[in-house]
Amino acid sequence: MTLQQSAHPPMMMQIPLKLPDAVQSALGRVEDLIHQIVDSDVNVLRDASRHILAAGGKRIRPRLTLLSHFAVGGEGSDTLYRIAAAVELVHTASVVHDDINDHGVLRRGRPSVNALWGRTFALLTGDFLFTKVYELMAPLGDLNVPFAEATIALVEGETLQAAAVKENNFTREVYYDIIARKTAALFRASAYLGAVTANDDMTYADALANYGFNIGLAFQIVDDILDVIGDEKKLGKTAGIDIEQGRGYTAAYAKAVDSSDPMETIKRKVMNADALSEARDKSRMLVDSAVAYLDLLPESDAKIALIDLAYQVVERDF
Amino acid sequence: MTLQQSAHPPMMMQIPLKLPDAVQSALGRVEDLIHQIVDSDVNVLRDASRHILAAGGKRIRPRLTLLSHFAVGGEGSDTLYRIAAAVELVHTASVVHDDINDHGVLRRGRPSVNALWGRTFALLTGDFLFTKVYELMAPLGDLNVPFAEATIALVEGETLQAAAVKENNFTREVYYDIIARKTAALFRASAYLGAVTANDDMTYADALANYGFNIGLAFQIVDDILDVIGDEKKLGKTAGIDIEQGRGYTAAYAKAVDSSDPMETIKRKVMNADALSEARDKSRMLVDSAVAYLDLLPESDAKIALIDLAYQVVERDF
Repeated sequence: MTLQQSAHPPMMMQIPLKLPDAVQSALGRVEDLIHQIVDSDVNVLRDASRHILAAGGKRIRPRLTLLSHFAVGGEGSDTLYRIAAAVELVHTASVVHDDINDHGVLRRGRPSVNALWGRTFALLTGDFLFTKVYELMAPLGDLNVPFAEATIALVEGETLQAAAVKENNFTREVYYDIIARKTAALFRASAYLGAVTANDDMTYADALANYGFNIGLAFQIVDDILDVIGDEKKLGKTAGIDIEQGRGYTAAYAKAVDSSDPMETIKRKVMNADALSEARDKSRMLVDSAVAYLDLLPESDAKIALIDLAYQVVERDF
Repeated sequence: MTLQQSAHPPMMMQIPLKLPDAVQSALGRVEDLIHQIVDSDVNVLRDASRHILAAGGKRIRPRLTLLSHFAVGGEGSDTLYRIAAAVELVHTASVVHDDINDHGVLRRGRPSVNALWGRTFALLTGDFLFTKVYELMAPLGDLNVPFAEATIALVEGETLQAAAVKENNFTREVYYDIIARKTAALFRASAYLGAVTANDDMTYADALANYGFNIGLAFQIVDDILDVIGDEKKLGKTAGIDIEQGRGYTAAYAKAVDSSDPMETIKRKVMNADALSEARDKSRMLVDSAVAYLDLLPESDAKIALIDLAYQVVERDF
């Protein structure tokens, strides 16, 4: 696979966030840990895992964990790095399995694991990443409880989505339930676990959990908008999948859309509808309320970075 | 799905093992827990999970856990029931994913999840069961460490198998590495965790770990024989998959077999070869050495049941 890999150099689609030095250095530790934990003498698992992980991705979940930790007085720890690596891996596992079900061929600017290694190995690579999450978290005692809840929610959310599409019942209520589980629950856990590993004050942990949850909702709404109007090259993944499959924000909101229309027609219809500007507005409101939760935190560089992160989530175009 | 389910009543393919009353009652608790933990308001996940779990299966892994626990003086505990449920669920998750990759349509005497709900939901049901394992184990502290190791080994073993078939490199050495990881590692962990939750004496735990590991190897060899010569109805799952895909014990041992032959020809060739009797001999030896590890355990009904279990693993025809 070396040849195929080198033909697709990593696209670092990271949000250009200015991180405090301590957080930047912690993120480096997390990257090392991610790279190291997926080592295996089973070549295909190691290679496929590193292929998808080395492609970058926005790393928004581990950043949330690290910033939440530093924002309430933490100074980093092995426990923290494990959690930050685990939240990225659980997301990556779900992405690898997603690309099987959706036939996504492009992910993080590279061919998907599915496209390069085929369905059987993609399925096993996703499973492998889930078990590596478990290995990372295993020594961390009761921190496993909220983390397990978030992973269950993620799978339930993905399933609700597939069921809603199948039953042609993609209402606004269903849409919010889906994104709360498949995206916002892990964002909440990422922030919450960063906070509780730094500080016993549950007021901080709850505030950051709520911040994370709202950012997660906003993030997914924006993701769904970008699926329709975004530039596939910038996005680094197959676009139009959500709308083609009759799901995502526009499916719930722009009822004029008929998924049997050609993609270009759908795109034009959606662009003309109010759905997209409504979605941007909605995601901005969520981010505002997320940021309001940070009011009670002491001032710090990490807090400033959390506020920046929130606004970049909605203003990004990739 | 109710109609389809009731058309296929559960086949309890349980090894007819006489269990001590306390163990039998503990197994009832474990069954309740398994049923309860896969509850979800996402109907398809709950229904598909209960479909595959209610079909029975041999429940050999939770029995190993319970018997090991009682054999070293344990009297049952919530921790024990959680572990016993978790070892069954992790096995079930892997079976559900297996049936996607192998196109297995029959499992535990019923249509597979894949056959009834389709690939997308089968993939998500397997993921859901993995996350439910995680939920069960999350409160159990350091017991998660050996358990995580076993789940990683399982996925690695499945992957080694797929890779060996693809590369046409299914040697005896590769075969043993595969079954050690995909089957014996979880058997070892099942027995080991039963023991350590009852008794601090690591001599016992290590003996039971070795017992479990050897039983696991024997179990898989017998499974592979039955894939070729067994009665699909009794087995309750699609037979001939291993040999059709050029894997399993006979693929490693009976080199005369050509997987492009019609199934009946392959079957006849294998029956005529020494491979099968060699495999039975090999599995009997493994069971003998497994049982020898039990020598240092105090006499008890649970110990007798462990010995019975070992011999039934090799003598079963389903």
